[in-house]
Amino acid sequence: MFNNIINSLPAELTNETFDTLLTANNIKIERIVSKGHTSPASGWHDQEDNEWVLVLEGAGTILFEDGREVTMRKGDYLHITAHVKHKVSWTDPDRQTIWLAVHYPVPT
Amino acid sequence: MFNNIINSLPAELTNETFDTLLTANNIKIERIVSKGHTSPASGWHDQEDNEWVLVLEGAGTILFEDGREVTMRKGDYLHITAHVKHKVSWTDPDRQTIWLAVHYPVPT
Repeated sequence: MFNNIINSLPAELTNETFDTLLTANNIKIERIVSKGHTSPASGWHDQEDNEWVLVLEGAGTILFEDGREVTMRKGDYLHITAHVKHKVSWTDPDRQTIWLAVHYPVPT
Repeated sequence: MFNNIINSLPAELTNETFDTLLTANNIKIERIVSKGHTSPASGWHDQEDNEWVLVLEGAGTILFEDGREVTMRKGDYLHITAHVKHKVSWTDPDRQTIWLAVHYPVPT
């Protein structure tokens, strides 16, 4: 497993890549690399866990079911509460976008 | 509170800065900005929680009590298990080093 999040980018990106950097105590830290990829046209992500997401390189747009759209660039971070429906409506087609996502459970 | 981790750097850095980006469910995500700062010469950090740390910009060195020393550069990440004693023995004096730290509890 790589231990550098930027130097170890996939050579080709037919599909988005998802790499788990840490799983422990119901937390998952994940690197996602996109290049022009978006969520499927129909349907929404509806997640059991909360998510804190940061763009490390590139840019992408998150569309929420309520119509809100947030374009995130390098350094931008966003909190996506569990079950708030969303999708990735755009990512930069010309370069890799690196996302760092921290998934953590809803307090019980 | 800023929502970009890179564009909102402190103008001066007499002391290291610590900004909490998220606290929820016993997790804390924190940005630390250093510029030549190190831990106090004597003593060690001895943390109750596990820590996952990533360097976003700059460089810094973590020294462990067992003598292991890890210099981290942009994109490098490291896991520091709770109660593993460590300190920051060096950070780049010429530019700001941005750390992203995810603190999370030890599973019970």
